[in-house]
Amino acid sequence: MKTLFEQELKVVNVGLQSFAANIDAAGGNATHLSWSPPAGADAALGWTVANMIGEPMIEEANRTAYERYLAAQPRLTDFLLARDAIPALTERRVLHAGPPIAWEQMCGPQKGAICGAILYEGWTDTIEAAEKLAASGKVLMEPCHTYGAVGPMAGVISPSMPVWVVENAAAGNRAFCNVNEGLGKVLRFGANSGDVIDRLKWLGTEFFTTMQIAVRGLADANLKPLMGQALHMGDELHNRNSAASGLLFKRLTLALMDSKVDGAAAKRALTFVARNDHFFLNLSMAACKSMSDAAHGVAGSSMVTAMSRNGVNFGIRLSGTGDRWFEAPVNPVNGLYFPGYTVNDAAADLGDSAITETNGLGGFAMAASPAIVQFVGGIPADATENSRRMLSITLGSNPAFTLPALDFGGTPAGIDARLVVDSGILPIINTGIAHKKAGVGQIGAGITAAPMECFSKAIAALAAALHGASPPARAAS
Amino acid sequence: MKTLFEQELKVVNVGLQSFAANIDAAGGNATHLSWSPPAGADAALGWTVANMIGEPMIEEANRTAYERYLAAQPRLTDFLLARDAIPALTERRVLHAGPPIAWEQMCGPQKGAICGAILYEGWTDTIEAAEKLAASGKVLMEPCHTYGAVGPMAGVISPSMPVWVVENAAAGNRAFCNVNEGLGKVLRFGANSGDVIDRLKWLGTEFFTTMQIAVRGLADANLKPLMGQALHMGDELHNRNSAASGLLFKRLTLALMDSKVDGAAAKRALTFVARNDHFFLNLSMAACKSMSDAAHGVAGSSMVTAMSRNGVNFGIRLSGTGDRWFEAPVNPVNGLYFPGYTVNDAAADLGDSAITETNGLGGFAMAASPAIVQFVGGIPADATENSRRMLSITLGSNPAFTLPALDFGGTPAGIDARLVVDSGILPIINTGIAHKKAGVGQIGAGITAAPMECFSKAIAALAAALHGASPPARAAS
Repeated sequence: MKTLFEQELKVVNVGLQSFAANIDAAGGNATHLSWSPPAGADAALGWTVANMIGEPMIEEANRTAYERYLAAQPRLTDFLLARDAIPALTERRVLHAGPPIAWEQMCGPQKGAICGAILYEGWTDTIEAAEKLAASGKVLMEPCHTYGAVGPMAGVISPSMPVWVVENAAAGNRAFCNVNEGLGKVLRFGANSGDVIDRLKWLGTEFFTTMQIAVRGLADANLKPLMGQALHMGDELHNRNSAASGLLFKRLTLALMDSKVDGAAAKRALTFVARNDHFFLNLSMAACKSMSDAAHGVAGSSMVTAMSRNGVNFGIRLSGTGDRWFEAPVNPVNGLYFPGYTVNDAAADLGDSAITETNGLGGFAMAASPAIVQFVGGIPADATENSRRMLSITLGSNPAFTLPALDFGGTPAGIDARLVVDSGILPIINTGIAHKKAGVGQIGAGITAAPMECFSKAIAALAAALHGASPPARAAS
Repeated sequence: MKTLFEQELKVVNVGLQSFAANIDAAGGNATHLSWSPPAGADAALGWTVANMIGEPMIEEANRTAYERYLAAQPRLTDFLLARDAIPALTERRVLHAGPPIAWEQMCGPQKGAICGAILYEGWTDTIEAAEKLAASGKVLMEPCHTYGAVGPMAGVISPSMPVWVVENAAAGNRAFCNVNEGLGKVLRFGANSGDVIDRLKWLGTEFFTTMQIAVRGLADANLKPLMGQALHMGDELHNRNSAASGLLFKRLTLALMDSKVDGAAAKRALTFVARNDHFFLNLSMAACKSMSDAAHGVAGSSMVTAMSRNGVNFGIRLSGTGDRWFEAPVNPVNGLYFPGYTVNDAAADLGDSAITETNGLGGFAMAASPAIVQFVGGIPADATENSRRMLSITLGSNPAFTLPALDFGGTPAGIDARLVVDSGILPIINTGIAHKKAGVGQIGAGITAAPMECFSKAIAALAAALHGASPPARAAS
């Protein structure tokens, strides 16, 4: 003890930062450790999660789930009308982004997109009639995730819309996503004017038949190597997809040139793809959904297999808790707004696209994409730091998705809900921002985080499933 | 003085690093400054360059040259046979990379490529006869640079080869480069077997007529914005051109789809482009040549407007010293070799492609391209450090070519020969490595530096041109 006080003291401060500041002010040397109590200082939950970390059955389940995720080999195998890909969609039914939500609770852009889909399907002739029909309960509305599908922003998929079909060759499971319409006034941001519907109709007819031939004629349908390559070309495959869209364009072009497709139709289809640097987003999402679904359904696993937002609530699913959603109100988006718009115009966080972060892409792979900060805000060093930080809440890193800026380490992947609750570190998500009014479209992009409450609820549910009930909390002292 | 010795000493050591090591060993605290005497401790040259730095006439000339470089707007305006682009090429004449060199002095790959060109042109029927013809002096051999052209590696351009025509819209000057043949056995690495010549013949006929239609039908012929975009997608536009090649592929495809070109020919041409991630290199080089040439010929300017290698000597040109080359033996390449090859198999540094570094790309833009280190060696942090270091020998940075990893600062551009001589910092160059025997092809890639002697000679010549002769050296003491 005497020796301790004779040498120069080196202080590590944990907790309130002002204690370290006082030591510094007195001429001492204190290092502040960024730390907060586990489980947001909820003692019961803290004990629950502490008991779950290292628990052999959970560790084993997570290994299984994570290996299935890593083994997944997403392939773009087909391009189908949604009703042919998803048998349940033959009725008067639409799918939407996020966890389940009733029409009355939906945000503006999601209502706008559903009305647009009703018009597109020809179930009514006017938007007013579409709103009435939607409110009448005669159109079934269910999450995309319920049927192995995903959709960006409002994420609306109706029976006559074409969907990409991505099959995980390792396990045979299939995932679906609609077609990216481009930027500006588009259905996914709630726009439903005549030009939006006309574009959807072209996408569902000439573009559909042309692209179906291209997809079926692809010389290389593997998406994982293409995505890995795009990460070395500045994409993070959520808000930046320029490189992947270009790589896909090459493959589609060569496939079409091998076909008997009418030249003018091929030109229109390829021009549409060439002009949209976000075109690959929807394929990235379908590929991610197929990889996450491969890891889903392992009893006891705390691995997150879905994160999604419906504009009101953020929902997550764990591999070990089946199809149950754990929800909390969405967090605001910290972003850059297009000229003329502010945070007051913004809809809340929306869309299934957080499936990319669930798979180690998007916000988790920002180190791949320093240029993304021009779109979502921040500086390039933040991008790298975000990827590093996510490593502390994931089961590992994905060797198929490497990050040059992190000396070619893999992207952090396989979010472990236990580690989120224990560390207080929230999954970071890159996202677009929709105007809160239907029909205006995208007004910005930025960064947000999944709410802690989703993970707390999920951990409590997983503990209950494993032990019948949470273990009793010990006294905090 | 007393106060100085009473406080803790902080030592900055300049010169021999061992002095700092001794202080550290004795428990002191020394910071070593990486510094070497100006002009390699050549006192006369040191005074010459010291007198030139800040000299108003040189500063003014450099401003003019640099502004012309920045103002250049390279556009891909045509695709022509070399004899139609370069009138002097109607005779029995071939162009080659680097400064002038006689047949007898040429390295293996350059001889091999010239013999291949003789076969391609049909001037002889066998390689043996081609060698005899080349040695007879009946084929004129001149540098590409003499005619506004550039070529990678051996850089051989003969009259019937097609060349990209890039025009600087700001000043009207044109630059030319041949077509990238892909990797493996190709003419630019000295290969000249039957398949190499057959490929050249296809490139000069069906590919030529198809691509000429595509180039003439481009909706957007501007190369500078495309190159800036590619820098945000992991290219440095010398050894990595994946993104730029993809962006060009899109433009060529859409132009061809608008044309009446035969579908099968278009497919073959586009497939060739799609399969070669280095395809854009030759366009990057032509664009760079057009920008450098815009800055060339300003009396008094110490800006470097060409750096090039013929496999024996490295040559540079300054804007202010006309078409004179300043040469020195090429430096070895520090690189990664393909399996089965070592430095003993390597030809010396070769090619006009250092025109990219002359324009702030390639080694100067490595911060854009962390993934390049997998190809040329090193770690991603080296890539960023290389770009930073080059800022100390350039006239500025190019706002059209920004680097996300350097917080979107421009690439270091406009090498000032004065600063190279004064600082001892050499321009860094990313390069391919050819086998020393003609016909084997590429065996690796790596990093090298321009030799100091080129810059010392250039500075002495510029001083002589400005003052009639170098100022007398002062005593070194």
